[in-house]
Amino acid sequence: MDKKYRIQNAETIPSPSLVVYLPHVQYNIEHAIATVGGDVSKLRPHAKTHKTAEIIAMEREAGILKHKCATLREAEMLAQNGIEDILIAYQMVGPNVNRFVSLQLKYPDADFKVIVDHEESVTALASAAARLGLNVKVMLDLDVGMNRTGIPLGDAAVDVYAQIEAVDGLQPWGLHVYDGHIHDEDVADRKASCDKSLAQVEEMKDRLVSKGLDVPLIVMGGTPTFPIYAKTPGVEASPGTFVFHDHGYTTHFPDLGFAPAALLLSRVISIPTPRRITLDLGHKAIAADPDGVRGIVLNVDGAEVGKQHEEHWAINVPDSTPIHIGQEIYVCPTHICPCVALHPFYYVVDADGYCRGTWEVTARNRTL
Amino acid sequence: MDKKYRIQNAETIPSPSLVVYLPHVQYNIEHAIATVGGDVSKLRPHAKTHKTAEIIAMEREAGILKHKCATLREAEMLAQNGIEDILIAYQMVGPNVNRFVSLQLKYPDADFKVIVDHEESVTALASAAARLGLNVKVMLDLDVGMNRTGIPLGDAAVDVYAQIEAVDGLQPWGLHVYDGHIHDEDVADRKASCDKSLAQVEEMKDRLVSKGLDVPLIVMGGTPTFPIYAKTPGVEASPGTFVFHDHGYTTHFPDLGFAPAALLLSRVISIPTPRRITLDLGHKAIAADPDGVRGIVLNVDGAEVGKQHEEHWAINVPDSTPIHIGQEIYVCPTHICPCVALHPFYYVVDADGYCRGTWEVTARNRTL
Repeated sequence: MDKKYRIQNAETIPSPSLVVYLPHVQYNIEHAIATVGGDVSKLRPHAKTHKTAEIIAMEREAGILKHKCATLREAEMLAQNGIEDILIAYQMVGPNVNRFVSLQLKYPDADFKVIVDHEESVTALASAAARLGLNVKVMLDLDVGMNRTGIPLGDAAVDVYAQIEAVDGLQPWGLHVYDGHIHDEDVADRKASCDKSLAQVEEMKDRLVSKGLDVPLIVMGGTPTFPIYAKTPGVEASPGTFVFHDHGYTTHFPDLGFAPAALLLSRVISIPTPRRITLDLGHKAIAADPDGVRGIVLNVDGAEVGKQHEEHWAINVPDSTPIHIGQEIYVCPTHICPCVALHPFYYVVDADGYCRGTWEVTARNRTL
Repeated sequence: MDKKYRIQNAETIPSPSLVVYLPHVQYNIEHAIATVGGDVSKLRPHAKTHKTAEIIAMEREAGILKHKCATLREAEMLAQNGIEDILIAYQMVGPNVNRFVSLQLKYPDADFKVIVDHEESVTALASAAARLGLNVKVMLDLDVGMNRTGIPLGDAAVDVYAQIEAVDGLQPWGLHVYDGHIHDEDVADRKASCDKSLAQVEEMKDRLVSKGLDVPLIVMGGTPTFPIYAKTPGVEASPGTFVFHDHGYTTHFPDLGFAPAALLLSRVISIPTPRRITLDLGHKAIAADPDGVRGIVLNVDGAEVGKQHEEHWAINVPDSTPIHIGQEIYVCPTHICPCVALHPFYYVVDADGYCRGTWEVTARNRTL
């Protein structure tokens, strides 16, 4: 295992626990800023990965002043921590429509933006905003192939954007494009995929502008496509995972240059056979997403993850003889974002490798 | 969809949310008691599924006075709610050893038991207990084929049990056997699998007793094997899932006779195509375990779950035309236990189908 992940006072940390290495977080933030050539106006990190007030403070300290988020609780956390430019990249439906407009009243200094992709959403949002006398900034969510949310580029998209302009209470504020389907490990291929999306988005923007509609903002991409949008004029990039990074993105996208900054600290609770150990790290502590390998063991040579349960993980090892009950095991998760949401707080580790306390996962819950 | 799951005031519940139907919980508790022929002394439900004080109160009201749990926080929740007989069916390692013995000091009225499966665990536990002048009741965890924790039946198991008796600070308190590997859908096959385990466990008990060792308690099984151990003399059954039940166990073990009592309330946030809708129900709200189908949609005919993300779930439908943005979608999870741990509280629905408030998931976190 890379020595930089060894925690000098690991015996003070109960397991299973999430641990975050602050020097690596700091490095990732600085590397993100270097990736946009120092122009922080191009950076809108997604708060869904860390959900943590202290991380927002670290980003602010580095000059990052605007954020993206998915839940109302994340949006409120951002507003509470002095962030004035907040994009909620999530469609508001049901009771969340009124909760969102109430948030605007509660934090008048924050400049909230939200996305829509359907005329019914526009109507519901406009009705709630107009009732409170608000003027809500709304971005159109475009689908460039993710097949998740977003309206396909075309006439219907233009119509919905024009509808935002036409109704009382809403103000059209540009285009939002998430492209998590772009998975090319080869950098040139990934750039080609992004260029294809960019051409479509530019064409859509031109159509809207030619109709006299304002398009003040375009927000695109996640962590894998970040290096491309970082260099694209007129586009804000919105990486999320980078701040903690994980095994999945490190393996598939080594070109990104970020370092894993969050691990799971586990311990051996059972040594059933000469070839198997069992960890106290079930899928209630390290997320079951993705299917398959949910993380890798860093400090046991030849370890291969086996069957996982709620509070247990069977690990196959070449030889369990030298391993002892209670031994600390460091695991790098394949997908960090859902892991953070499983923990109420994480232990923070300093540059000397010492755990110095805990930071709350402030926006772990969805409720305000 | 079965009308009994329709929530009359669903529009008051933000989504995604966990909802629990109290009449069905009550039914499941009563059905569990009926399964042991009314003899509640045979029942030791696992608190890991619900992690909730009010559910413990419902069980106590029905006469259930002893529980099993996995985490120290669950154990503390049980003690705080007046439960005096608490089995922590989890190996204590690292800082958890001292945290466990401290719990005994903090709740002197509670009769805690814990499990071990390795001589190193016995030594660590004995050392901590003796230091505080405690006498801890310890059960030997046996592996009858689950391959997770537990010592295989045989001479080594006898030696560890004798070691518990021999050291200061510990008191041998019987055998713990979890058999989640028994998956036979056919009831006769399942009984045959259980009988095989039972014969082994009985033989082990006889060996221990013949050596002059006490074996006051045998705790076996989970929900699928519950009907078998419910009828086995000298054995306590410890089902967990039954209290809320789920789609997975309903499908694989219809003989159990429990009813799903917990659903996820979701809403349509996007209708991208005539054949697809997207729900606000990602794997941060419905657990990603098991691999594959993580839940089924109850109130859209022909709905088939597709790709899921952190806050989104694509659902393929025969025709999205009649579906509207914000429409409530009821989802029955395949595996309820890890879903509960994703929520800070759940909405409780009464016999008339009205949501009457929320109950906290008290032991959601692992920390005391």
